[in-house]
Amino acid sequence: MNNALISLEQQMTDAGLTALLVTDPKHVYYLTGFASNPHERFLGLLLRRGDEPALIVPALDSEAAHASSSVQNILTHSDTDNPYLLLKEGLGSADLGNFGIEKEHFSVARYEQLAAFVPAKTFSDIGPLLRSMRSKKTPEEAGRMKHAAELVEEVLRRGLEHVKTGVTEIELVAELEYLMKKLGASGPSFDTMVLSGPNTALPHGVPGSRVIQPGDFLMFDLGVYAAGYASDITRTFAVEKADDKLTAIYNTVLAANEAGIAASRAGATFGSVDRAARDVIEAAGYGPYFMHRVGHGLGMDTHEYPSLHGLNEDIIEHGNVFTVEPGIYVPELGGVRIEDDVLVTEDGPQTLTSFPKELTVLHL
Amino acid sequence: MNNALISLEQQMTDAGLTALLVTDPKHVYYLTGFASNPHERFLGLLLRRGDEPALIVPALDSEAAHASSSVQNILTHSDTDNPYLLLKEGLGSADLGNFGIEKEHFSVARYEQLAAFVPAKTFSDIGPLLRSMRSKKTPEEAGRMKHAAELVEEVLRRGLEHVKTGVTEIELVAELEYLMKKLGASGPSFDTMVLSGPNTALPHGVPGSRVIQPGDFLMFDLGVYAAGYASDITRTFAVEKADDKLTAIYNTVLAANEAGIAASRAGATFGSVDRAARDVIEAAGYGPYFMHRVGHGLGMDTHEYPSLHGLNEDIIEHGNVFTVEPGIYVPELGGVRIEDDVLVTEDGPQTLTSFPKELTVLHL
Repeated sequence: MNNALISLEQQMTDAGLTALLVTDPKHVYYLTGFASNPHERFLGLLLRRGDEPALIVPALDSEAAHASSSVQNILTHSDTDNPYLLLKEGLGSADLGNFGIEKEHFSVARYEQLAAFVPAKTFSDIGPLLRSMRSKKTPEEAGRMKHAAELVEEVLRRGLEHVKTGVTEIELVAELEYLMKKLGASGPSFDTMVLSGPNTALPHGVPGSRVIQPGDFLMFDLGVYAAGYASDITRTFAVEKADDKLTAIYNTVLAANEAGIAASRAGATFGSVDRAARDVIEAAGYGPYFMHRVGHGLGMDTHEYPSLHGLNEDIIEHGNVFTVEPGIYVPELGGVRIEDDVLVTEDGPQTLTSFPKELTVLHL
Repeated sequence: MNNALISLEQQMTDAGLTALLVTDPKHVYYLTGFASNPHERFLGLLLRRGDEPALIVPALDSEAAHASSSVQNILTHSDTDNPYLLLKEGLGSADLGNFGIEKEHFSVARYEQLAAFVPAKTFSDIGPLLRSMRSKKTPEEAGRMKHAAELVEEVLRRGLEHVKTGVTEIELVAELEYLMKKLGASGPSFDTMVLSGPNTALPHGVPGSRVIQPGDFLMFDLGVYAAGYASDITRTFAVEKADDKLTAIYNTVLAANEAGIAASRAGATFGSVDRAARDVIEAAGYGPYFMHRVGHGLGMDTHEYPSLHGLNEDIIEHGNVFTVEPGIYVPELGGVRIEDDVLVTEDGPQTLTSFPKELTVLHL
């Protein structure tokens, strides 16, 4: 068993759980080394106090599970089997006082099935426990994340060579995602975003066929998965020349990004990182144009615990990795976002991303 | 309002629901035209009997929602707002007898929040209703799906030109996904799969750095999203020469694929499509090596209702689109899968995919 699984078994006992079922494929990967995408099929890691863990997988993943899972007690079900029956049999006649499930991952429909076959006294949420475990990266995990950050920065560096007369947002997306695969990433960690001109005012805009124009601001938000871990970076550039209003916005966002990073210290709250960045933007008069939280946890998922919004009073710990990505979005005019991935160490914040941040003018 | 939304309002009344909440982003897209990825943020379309529909979106998606949603009554929440409070206010003091939610999409954690703020008498599952609506494609939807199929076939055609001495599985994946974007797809509709040699024996294998070898079978499973709809195709080729055992397997799978397609007629059960294909494989003695269902519904999601497994007694209707993808996977030796996308019409099954299926030998 890997260390994470041993730790979870210990915490299961401490939390008074008699058994628990892990169903998020990322959590199963984290705990067993078996990565899969079961689609709508049932996948679960069952832990029972004082008994061997069991991995329940769709039959067609059986060979892959045997090849990669540290848990070798593998139960399979075909598309016509009822996996809840398998679960019931796996639990035997054990006392099911307090049964742990991932309430944010488990659907109401599955819960109704589970409750029908597994008559536990109570169902407790093990999501916070798993999230907390995953939020504290080991040095090995931090190393993988540094690699994922370096990889996406190389992609961005090479991708910028394709910013030429006539190129469209979506063509740049294609180049970037091609480079990701070519350079060895398993793939993008989210839909790559390239937005230009007034489109940069949409924090969640979708790249289209707009041709990059002189005078545009050009925003890249991209990340890769590599060795199971995600990176996520945003940089905004000027094309040919930098508009004065946008330059003022850029410098404000850069100062906010740096203030947020500086505030990323163990013992402070996650909310204080948001507030440090937001204070800079509000002081410059752009408060209403920064309408999202400053960042999110990063690891095996691109968005994971914690959420860095102003009201999050949870305490930052060593090993936490999250994004710091303030932005200002002015409708019609355009927007700027600058995003780094930050690892909290005993020596303070360490950025995993290191792509230059001073305003750079690209030439077509 | 679009026709789907009008139809849903009618069915809400017929089903005795006083209100319902649609939360799957794909369903929100289907019903309003607003496509988004809210990540862990709350997104919901609220219908109340005798009242205007309301769309609840994260604040940062507000501009995009106003630009694309047919429902223009848009309520926004920031990352520090409680969206369930918004929902409660949106419902006012209306009688909440029977409240519809998507039980397969709604998490237990969200359900506990919802139940605390919205004290309905009962919560009913509207998933089957939405799935059934979505499974019957309009001619316009079928046209988009035909386009997505043609697009992925052009990607495959061009991708095959890159099968050369020394190329690896993962390099072919990179080429294919690059071509998808270049040719105008929004992206792959799932992780593109290229498997070679013995790796083809893994129905859910992950492409790696294995170099394509003479004598290999080479399996491509890929799809694209285009204009909101997915395609999904599998073809298996021989490299330089075709092994006798694998050729026998190939011909069996091809006959099974054709039997499954022929069985795809309105009035039959979905299960009968699986059985028609499976009978061919079992008769040839490969029964134990076909360990997955024959296919799945296809549309705005790559895997959607219905599931084509042998026990599904639901009835096929005109407008249904699904995959027919039998396979035989012999450990150590290799595997073959042949997959088409089938639209059920009044004139019988019509394949949206038309890439040649006779066994083709590729030359490096």
